[in-house]
Amino acid sequence: MIVVMSVNASARDISEVIARIRSMGYDVHLSEGKERTIIGVIGRGRPIDRDQLALMPGVNNVMPVSHPFKIASREYHPDDTVVPLNGIKVGAADLLIVAGPCSVEGREQIIEIAHAVREAGATALRGGAFKPRSSPYAFQGMGEEGLKYLAEAREATGLPIVTEVMDPQLVPLVCQYADVLQIGARNMQNYTLLHAVGESQHPVLLKRGMSSTIEELLMSAEYILSHGNMRVMLCERGIRTFETYTRNTFDINAIPVIKQMSHLPVIADPSHGVGKWEYVESVSLAAIAAGADGLILEVHQDPENAASDGRQSLKPERFAALVEKARKLAPIVNRTVPERESV
Amino acid sequence: MIVVMSVNASARDISEVIARIRSMGYDVHLSEGKERTIIGVIGRGRPIDRDQLALMPGVNNVMPVSHPFKIASREYHPDDTVVPLNGIKVGAADLLIVAGPCSVEGREQIIEIAHAVREAGATALRGGAFKPRSSPYAFQGMGEEGLKYLAEAREATGLPIVTEVMDPQLVPLVCQYADVLQIGARNMQNYTLLHAVGESQHPVLLKRGMSSTIEELLMSAEYILSHGNMRVMLCERGIRTFETYTRNTFDINAIPVIKQMSHLPVIADPSHGVGKWEYVESVSLAAIAAGADGLILEVHQDPENAASDGRQSLKPERFAALVEKARKLAPIVNRTVPERESV
Amino acid sequence: MIVVMSVNASARDISEVIARIRSMGYDVHLSEGKERTIIGVIGRGRPIDRDQLALMPGVNNVMPVSHPFKIASREYHPDDTVVPLNGIKVGAADLLIVAGPCSVEGREQIIEIAHAVREAGATALRGGAFKPRSSPYAFQGMGEEGLKYLAEAREATGLPIVTEVMDPQLVPLVCQYADVLQIGARNMQNYTLLHAVGESQHPVLLKRGMSSTIEELLMSAEYILSHGNMRVMLCERGIRTFETYTRNTFDINAIPVIKQMSHLPVIADPSHGVGKWEYVESVSLAAIAAGADGLILEVHQDPENAASDGRQSLKPERFAALVEKARKLAPIVNRTVPERESV
Amino acid sequence: MIVVMSVNASARDISEVIARIRSMGYDVHLSEGKERTIIGVIGRGRPIDRDQLALMPGVNNVMPVSHPFKIASREYHPDDTVVPLNGIKVGAADLLIVAGPCSVEGREQIIEIAHAVREAGATALRGGAFKPRSSPYAFQGMGEEGLKYLAEAREATGLPIVTEVMDPQLVPLVCQYADVLQIGARNMQNYTLLHAVGESQHPVLLKRGMSSTIEELLMSAEYILSHGNMRVMLCERGIRTFETYTRNTFDINAIPVIKQMSHLPVIADPSHGVGKWEYVESVSLAAIAAGADGLILEVHQDPENAASDGRQSLKPERFAALVEKARKLAPIVNRTVPERESV
Repeated sequence: MIVVMSVNASARDISEVIARIRSMGYDVHLSEGKERTIIGVIGRGRPIDRDQLALMPGVNNVMPVSHPFKIASREYHPDDTVVPLNGIKVGAADLLIVAGPCSVEGREQIIEIAHAVREAGATALRGGAFKPRSSPYAFQGMGEEGLKYLAEAREATGLPIVTEVMDPQLVPLVCQYADVLQIGARNMQNYTLLHAVGESQHPVLLKRGMSSTIEELLMSAEYILSHGNMRVMLCERGIRTFETYTRNTFDINAIPVIKQMSHLPVIADPSHGVGKWEYVESVSLAAIAAGADGLILEVHQDPENAASDGRQSLKPERFAALVEKARKLAPIVNRTVPERESV
Repeated sequence: MIVVMSVNASARDISEVIARIRSMGYDVHLSEGKERTIIGVIGRGRPIDRDQLALMPGVNNVMPVSHPFKIASREYHPDDTVVPLNGIKVGAADLLIVAGPCSVEGREQIIEIAHAVREAGATALRGGAFKPRSSPYAFQGMGEEGLKYLAEAREATGLPIVTEVMDPQLVPLVCQYADVLQIGARNMQNYTLLHAVGESQHPVLLKRGMSSTIEELLMSAEYILSHGNMRVMLCERGIRTFETYTRNTFDINAIPVIKQMSHLPVIADPSHGVGKWEYVESVSLAAIAAGADGLILEVHQDPENAASDGRQSLKPERFAALVEKARKLAPIVNRTVPERESV
Repeated sequence: MIVVMSVNASARDISEVIARIRSMGYDVHLSEGKERTIIGVIGRGRPIDRDQLALMPGVNNVMPVSHPFKIASREYHPDDTVVPLNGIKVGAADLLIVAGPCSVEGREQIIEIAHAVREAGATALRGGAFKPRSSPYAFQGMGEEGLKYLAEAREATGLPIVTEVMDPQLVPLVCQYADVLQIGARNMQNYTLLHAVGESQHPVLLKRGMSSTIEELLMSAEYILSHGNMRVMLCERGIRTFETYTRNTFDINAIPVIKQMSHLPVIADPSHGVGKWEYVESVSLAAIAAGADGLILEVHQDPENAASDGRQSLKPERFAALVEKARKLAPIVNRTVPERESV
Repeated sequence: MIVVMSVNASARDISEVIARIRSMGYDVHLSEGKERTIIGVIGRGRPIDRDQLALMPGVNNVMPVSHPFKIASREYHPDDTVVPLNGIKVGAADLLIVAGPCSVEGREQIIEIAHAVREAGATALRGGAFKPRSSPYAFQGMGEEGLKYLAEAREATGLPIVTEVMDPQLVPLVCQYADVLQIGARNMQNYTLLHAVGESQHPVLLKRGMSSTIEELLMSAEYILSHGNMRVMLCERGIRTFETYTRNTFDINAIPVIKQMSHLPVIADPSHGVGKWEYVESVSLAAIAAGADGLILEVHQDPENAASDGRQSLKPERFAALVEKARKLAPIVNRTVPERESV
């Protein structure tokens, strides 16, 4: 941490800042410029709140010099974290392809779409049983019944299940059925929930909040990692900007940035990232080209009649075409789309 | 809802859209222009997902014509909702002035500051016992112990207590101590929590998410109102924008907009809205001039040593000066800062 | 400037950074921490591009410690700049009230509205002769003819004229008619134009770009000030955010922030800042309460038939009511709305 | 255009809106719902300002149903526009690869880098002679001298020149030297300049403003096209968002969206879009995968000593590696990176 003093800070202001820093167990290094003095905070003492120094007389600014996350950072853990999922090594050369409907709508629907996406090349199945909806009057998901149908779909196809959990109390229930717990964008900073999924030791797909910085995403991952649960996959799903033609702005930059700052895998969600199915293929290929470790895509047999998110859902045949292009593109960035095994 | 057909939609496309709308229990009104056909959806049928129509062949766009919230809207409830709080009628002429530290740090601290803010003109006490922090390594609040100290501070000063609840399971506990349950910005779309505070029938202060639109704030209020809990106060606390010099951008526009769209009271939180104590007075006076029903402000005896948010906390004497200016300003917009009763 | 070295920077990396800094004419101050080394750049040498140091091996980050603007800063010029305008001292206790239509639409229209706004309390007249329009097919303004009508309106009412100039070549022409040259939000970083109005030595009203930071606004002011033209007034007119219910988000925070960072007057433009006439009064009062040095407002006799911006234009009687409230509010923040002299 | 009446609009309100619409030369279509009446505006009359209707009594909202741009739209011009540039057909299968330094810094520098980028696979040379800089104290470019050096570099290498013009008066001068006139992001809505480059009939590369919507970009293109100058290439260069870790947020979504809405070619500028050289390759490959018609990249022999933008400039060898990957990727999306001819 660096304390920049004001141009007109007095000698007393400076000595009081130094005394304060020392009282917290740190050393200081002083740079006395012609215009102003700058004080470096050195060593390891008690946690410092920047504000505590920022408010002292004569202080102009306090600047951190390190990221606030630790376990999530590549400095702490230089090698890529690999999360194994049903034979796929997420974070290594294999690309994870998660596909399925926004919501589980019924037993037949989810089993049928599971077969379709598996046939088309998916390596995991998504489907929501608990749905966060902005309106209390909209369909809220099938609940535990939906989880049971997802488990049946897994049995029928062998695809592991990715599904959202919203309520900390329901984490044990969802763990009984799901292979990966999804934390939705609206809950990225629901710390009670983050603690609960951390404690569960279950694999987690953590979505970036729609207005969260990359650093905040990594801080939320830190909540989960701090419980010793290292099987965390991050998900870029688009951010809120002034552009309204698309549902969100898919932050393609975030992919190489997160790969450099952290060792955790990054999955791209172009369905939410652009919000209209006709642009999903372009953004999916872009995400792979940029270095994503996988895709999570909304696929529905009959988007016009989907209970939610039909506007951004691909039909199975378009999804299959996308996977074929991804399969060709992947080797250019040293990746592989795993071949579907015969059923 | 209005369905705008594409310039090159076929007669068959149009008739299929019409059939679909009718199958959902609605009538249609057709506008056949020279360039394109526009179809109005009339009456009351089953809830329609815009996407279901947007995906039909020949459809260019589907536009809603009404707000998606109902109970929160002024059309539904033309008169101002008034939330009584310890003799203050929030939403009527009285301005609510909530003040106190970001976090409860100890028994003496909270009782001392409660006396100080009451003396200075506050009509309610704020203080966090459960703190949402972006870092898992930061101070997370004193928990139930903090709630007990808040209750003691209420007994000592008569000030009602506003405090945050983050965990749906803890709503009953927090209700035992708090007069108003605060839902923090990060939890504005934590629907499990919104249902829980709705069911509690306790007064709620619902903060706007840092990147939530005004409409989304009203939709979240709708979750609480849908449980018949009408004692909801909204809180504008600044939004996230590209400007980084201030912590957030206080959305002054939101105050008159919400007052027009909804009947619920609006409380302004300039401490978070601007993030640096030296600008809090200006923004507080602005909020009152714009029509806010009250203020919630961070006040601390010793901001440099505050456990959190010291950078934006006022000292009691500055808070007192602010209340005096607010008292003079209020009558110009037909409001009153209630006089402190003698202790 | 401070250079933060990486945790794993080598001794050679550090010595090369030091050598580079010295070669540019600066001294260095070294802070050797346990984790990393931090290098302070001291003194006055050749201008340094941060990037030049940021790219050297072993460098983690380069952070400026001063604002990049100089003449615009309060450190350089501690006293408020006062711009005299027809007897009003803008930047001192007097509030400047500029009112008038978005566009000059004809001779009678502008003279009539000039009388109306003067009667209601305006101290300057606005009106656009050259209009920046997002569509090439929209009304582009009356050009020089419009300027002549503005000059006639000034003669008829005594009100000084504020009008926009968009083309650097037309600065001399507009100076012949206008008392204040307005630089529109879209041209805030049109440097050719900023140089031209700087050279003109004419008073300037510089509007903040719709996505410009406060610092960028002050840098654009610096372009004008660097020509020795000190009669610059800044204008907060709302910024672009994710909220679409209002045209822009009026950045109320910017008012106290600019007043602290700079000595230049700040005028508020609530008409553009909120974009709907029904909210303009609330935001105008808020701006004065927050410390603005004046208002610029769109007022039109017949907003429904205005050539542009009718949606946000006040009728003269509503403008008059607003001025009356402003007159009462001003003294609470030590300001005055000048009394209209008898005609 | 559709006029949505309020729930409580009177019969008189409705008939007055109808009369107004008819007075402007349009027909109306009426949808009388149970809750509210909706009025469609039909046919072709005088241009209507939405605001004129929005302000009438009883009107709740006025919604456009068409895009405001015409010549730029794919409805008007279904086939892709192809801009020929030195044998490259921009907008067809060929990818345009523009590379070079941010600024022309000297004769030798630009000729040397021109050879280097040509060798590495570039098909056009970029370099700024007139530089828009946020500080008046920063290097502003070499002016006409820089243009002359660019022309020499073209002679030496055969590469066509892309360079920025900022001043409408200098358009004829820049046309003498440049093959493509670049309009920078800050000038996207400098209408005087857009008219000037439209009139010049010279090819134009129009950069998206950092906070401009896709629709606004197409409206600015419309200014140029309205002069009959059809050789317009659009450029996505990143938008301003709340994320500050990267310089801008490259809007990958914009590429497929623009390709669908318009017939004009889209060039990607990852250097500005992400702002740090280490991420430029990932974002470049992503842009091609998403359907871009070319890249414009900052390449410098010695980024640490570049006069500007060194932080985001690639060295020639990294640029060469990027071109090789692009060459492999292009065929997957039916594109080609043209082979360098032998010198």
